[in-house]
Amino acid sequence: MGAGRTYRMGRIFGADGRTLILPVDHGLTLGRIEGLEDPVARVDGLLELPCDGLLMTPGLTRMTADRFARRDAPARLLTLDTFFRLPGESSAGTGLAGSVEQAARLGVDCLKLFMAWNVPSGERAATLARITEVVRRAEEFDLPVMLEPIAVGEERTAGAIAVEADGARAALEVGADIIKVAYPGPELMAAWAAELRVPLVILGGPRSGEADAVLTLAEEAVAHGARGIVIGRNVWQRPPDVTLRLMRRLHEIVHP
Amino acid sequence: MGAGRTYRMGRIFGADGRTLILPVDHGLTLGRIEGLEDPVARVDGLLELPCDGLLMTPGLTRMTADRFARRDAPARLLTLDTFFRLPGESSAGTGLAGSVEQAARLGVDCLKLFMAWNVPSGERAATLARITEVVRRAEEFDLPVMLEPIAVGEERTAGAIAVEADGARAALEVGADIIKVAYPGPELMAAWAAELRVPLVILGGPRSGEADAVLTLAEEAVAHGARGIVIGRNVWQRPPDVTLRLMRRLHEIVHP
Amino acid sequence: MGAGRTYRMGRIFGADGRTLILPVDHGLTLGRIEGLEDPVARVDGLLELPCDGLLMTPGLTRMTADRFARRDAPARLLTLDTFFRLPGESSAGTGLAGSVEQAARLGVDCLKLFMAWNVPSGERAATLARITEVVRRAEEFDLPVMLEPIAVGEERTAGAIAVEADGARAALEVGADIIKVAYPGPELMAAWAAELRVPLVILGGPRSGEADAVLTLAEEAVAHGARGIVIGRNVWQRPPDVTLRLMRRLHEIVHP
Amino acid sequence: MGAGRTYRMGRIFGADGRTLILPVDHGLTLGRIEGLEDPVARVDGLLELPCDGLLMTPGLTRMTADRFARRDAPARLLTLDTFFRLPGESSAGTGLAGSVEQAARLGVDCLKLFMAWNVPSGERAATLARITEVVRRAEEFDLPVMLEPIAVGEERTAGAIAVEADGARAALEVGADIIKVAYPGPELMAAWAAELRVPLVILGGPRSGEADAVLTLAEEAVAHGARGIVIGRNVWQRPPDVTLRLMRRLHEIVHP
Amino acid sequence: MGAGRTYRMGRIFGADGRTLILPVDHGLTLGRIEGLEDPVARVDGLLELPCDGLLMTPGLTRMTADRFARRDAPARLLTLDTFFRLPGESSAGTGLAGSVEQAARLGVDCLKLFMAWNVPSGERAATLARITEVVRRAEEFDLPVMLEPIAVGEERTAGAIAVEADGARAALEVGADIIKVAYPGPELMAAWAAELRVPLVILGGPRSGEADAVLTLAEEAVAHGARGIVIGRNVWQRPPDVTLRLMRRLHEIVHP
Repeated sequence: MGAGRTYRMGRIFGADGRTLILPVDHGLTLGRIEGLEDPVARVDGLLELPCDGLLMTPGLTRMTADRFARRDAPARLLTLDTFFRLPGESSAGTGLAGSVEQAARLGVDCLKLFMAWNVPSGERAATLARITEVVRRAEEFDLPVMLEPIAVGEERTAGAIAVEADGARAALEVGADIIKVAYPGPELMAAWAAELRVPLVILGGPRSGEADAVLTLAEEAVAHGARGIVIGRNVWQRPPDVTLRLMRRLHEIVHP
Repeated sequence: MGAGRTYRMGRIFGADGRTLILPVDHGLTLGRIEGLEDPVARVDGLLELPCDGLLMTPGLTRMTADRFARRDAPARLLTLDTFFRLPGESSAGTGLAGSVEQAARLGVDCLKLFMAWNVPSGERAATLARITEVVRRAEEFDLPVMLEPIAVGEERTAGAIAVEADGARAALEVGADIIKVAYPGPELMAAWAAELRVPLVILGGPRSGEADAVLTLAEEAVAHGARGIVIGRNVWQRPPDVTLRLMRRLHEIVHP
Repeated sequence: MGAGRTYRMGRIFGADGRTLILPVDHGLTLGRIEGLEDPVARVDGLLELPCDGLLMTPGLTRMTADRFARRDAPARLLTLDTFFRLPGESSAGTGLAGSVEQAARLGVDCLKLFMAWNVPSGERAATLARITEVVRRAEEFDLPVMLEPIAVGEERTAGAIAVEADGARAALEVGADIIKVAYPGPELMAAWAAELRVPLVILGGPRSGEADAVLTLAEEAVAHGARGIVIGRNVWQRPPDVTLRLMRRLHEIVHP
Repeated sequence: MGAGRTYRMGRIFGADGRTLILPVDHGLTLGRIEGLEDPVARVDGLLELPCDGLLMTPGLTRMTADRFARRDAPARLLTLDTFFRLPGESSAGTGLAGSVEQAARLGVDCLKLFMAWNVPSGERAATLARITEVVRRAEEFDLPVMLEPIAVGEERTAGAIAVEADGARAALEVGADIIKVAYPGPELMAAWAAELRVPLVILGGPRSGEADAVLTLAEEAVAHGARGIVIGRNVWQRPPDVTLRLMRRLHEIVHP
Repeated sequence: MGAGRTYRMGRIFGADGRTLILPVDHGLTLGRIEGLEDPVARVDGLLELPCDGLLMTPGLTRMTADRFARRDAPARLLTLDTFFRLPGESSAGTGLAGSVEQAARLGVDCLKLFMAWNVPSGERAATLARITEVVRRAEEFDLPVMLEPIAVGEERTAGAIAVEADGARAALEVGADIIKVAYPGPELMAAWAAELRVPLVILGGPRSGEADAVLTLAEEAVAHGARGIVIGRNVWQRPPDVTLRLMRRLHEIVHP
């Protein structure tokens, strides 16, 4: 691993190799969603919580640059692409929403790209080709790349998880430094962590069920090899006191 | 914010952070419309009115360069793209109509791009990818970018405004320095202004209703956080004396 | 206007600001048409007639370079694109047929591009995007650009002329230095000339009707503000003595 | 003509301005066809016959470079593109199969590109756009370009020949240095040779009829202005003694 | 052959011009398949077996770089593209999954690209155009290119083999340094080896039939001119002792 990547991965994963990341990049594709209407205020609020990194788009990263202009601030990970699919559409709209040069100028620690994997073969290949070009450029700046293979909009059946296993594997093969996955259950979590070897981080997904369910998920995931949690709506779409409690517990789970 | 952007934003928004911009870029997509048949003459006329900036295409900007070759001239904002959709067409035609290099050579203060947002996902993603590339290049010249998310051709329902809220948010996330929106009503105006934090400017749209309605709109918008008005047809498609009166009043409203 | 453009526009429009241009670029899209089977011989013949410039493709320009290698030769304008549409086809085939670099190497005085404007929105936007890229490169060499907005294959109704008015306006807005139009009648001719301000030149179109009709058209057009005539088939698809007579008269009309 | 092009055209056309070229590039699009299963052996065999140049793909050119590494070897012309169309397909597959940089590195004397001309307008325009880009790059290296306009798979009717006449003309207009055509009959041959002025060379096409028919074709073509013959299958898909006899006669016909 | 290519081909084919290559690149397109769930562990296991090279994707190559950081390690060949086709899809998804620059940085000895050849003409041409661009860049680094023409998903009929013969030939013509084919039977093997002249290596394909069948195939292929075997699933999807025995025998067959 190059010196730049070593430095940046260290900023994200810290001394114990674990990370708790807060995504606040939803506005790009989901628009003005509940709890994130005011993204800068949300960032300001989240910065008071214990966390290791924030996942943001280029615009929000630029707007909040001053908040991170200190040595002990959380890392910043940059969302670099879009994924749109309206109800009834047979194909999705995807593309870049930022550039590697922007990332380098902004001084972020990682790039994040999406891999919808339950899609037609043409979309799969186009997604990898787009990612490949980003990886090529990222290597020039020694920037780590996080990829996120997802069976979009599917129920969590064994079939959907198998599609994501294939996507995670493709992510590894094109050069992912970090892979962000939906929690596949304890056995597969352990298997994937052992097999893929790059850090796997678990996504929180949309708010659902009881607040404490996310803690169970995080504990289980970390116990079976997850190197971190990337959790947004399931945390910050709760009342502030719940959010605070959840983050403290998550931080304890990730960094015991 | 870089020095170049600070300088240019200052030229557009002045000491009080407010701006009154006159768009005269309609010929590119609408052709030879009423009141703008002779764009240079129109620019000459508008330059006698109180305003802070003109929004023009590359061609018109070049043709009128001498009118602005003085230190107290209004700022110039450059329209950089097209949006065509004929009656009955299921998809629009969009693309660049100018380049960042032209903008830099012309010495304009801002780039303006359109975001039709009530469109299929493929068009959304393509629009953002095109904008992303412009933003990347604009950063090299430290040129501000204004984005304009619109639910094209839709009635002003709550649904259409919500689509525009999502578009405004996407605009922010890809790095807009200024966002141009249709006035969403007082409450959302205040909310968006607070949330998005970059200057929001209000578009005037096609001439409609009584001349004074635009004054009410401007007053209301500014009172609720709009940082400026971008108003063309609704002003200059009126008789000259009405246009003059409206502009004087708008200037007072924007710069009280 | 840059020094290079000033120089080249002066070569095309001369001291009186008027020009008579002979197009011999038809072979690229129409093939081996009557009267232009032998394009070099045709150029040689035309060079004996009074005229200010020839419109040619890159290939013909290169082949005839020696004919123009003297200080008092006519200007050369370079056709840079194609437009194909076979009977029954619902969309046209368009694209570049030459490059700005070639133009610079050949030493021509102007680039000419076509704008079919009675086409679907997607084709309109693609045409402008292609032109925009050429304009960007042409600016680097300070080469003038002539654009030609046409309602292809339509009868000369008011509707078709209005489409061309819109196209001429779009041409202006993307940076045309010269606009080539079909003669729209005296009133619109005068209006467009006044409004668009860049030199408008009138196309001759396919041979039709009496030979002298073209003289009437030229007289009327010039009397109402046209800055020149671009006339090919309607002149050189006539018997040689008619061609010679027409060109002499046209030259007198353009340069009285 | 630049010094590089003068030098290379001289290598192809020799002192008498005539050329006999052997194409062995069929494997790229036709695969392992009869008589060319072993292309290097075929090249070795052909090098013993009297000829002025070989037409080969990048791969074969590289593999046989040592055979041509002497001062009196035939010229090499490089096939740079593909044309695939399977039975029943409504559109063809075309694209580059080599680059101008490769050609420059290989030291070949000419580039050869195909122009299927009895195709939809979109394919025509795309073909010319691709050729235009090659021509632009070829000019930087002063490499001649041979274009080959063909009414693919059509019977040799007057209509098909007229399509090829149009294609040959388009080839000229985009800058062909040499045009390769199917023999159009004595009158058109003479007309095209006189009109197009760049060297026209005649293709042999697939093996057909009596061996001596190709001699008659060559004699007739050369007698009416063809500057050379490009003949492959119709010669080397014959028994060796026939091939040898044909080549000797063709050489006498081309260089009497 | 350039010095870089000579050096790298020597690393792959050794003193006797033969090679035994283990592909472990399946994860990119096939996902988490049996026997390759943990690719790094698989590589570690394979490195204990006698072999001359491993075929890996960019991601896996980077992750295992330390295993090869010694002078007597096997060569590494880089898989550079994807091929996806889900059941029921009429067209495949293909594209790059790595770049020539990455390959040069990684220090691999060869690039490998896929050529699905029983596909529509448009896909054929697009595949060759993509390969052509890779070949152009690979030449700048003097990196060998292995191409793999396959009639995907077809039974091994004479027709399918003929399609692959055509594909192998096209591979040669665009500049393949090594061609990877499915074993076509003894006679065609001998013919292709003699005709194509670049080293042909035989693919093992999916596990099928008796373990020893692959030995028969390898013996037969090598006896008839194959310069190597590229065998993965058919070897490492067996029990470890079978894998070891097969590899020892294959090594003896390839390097007798």
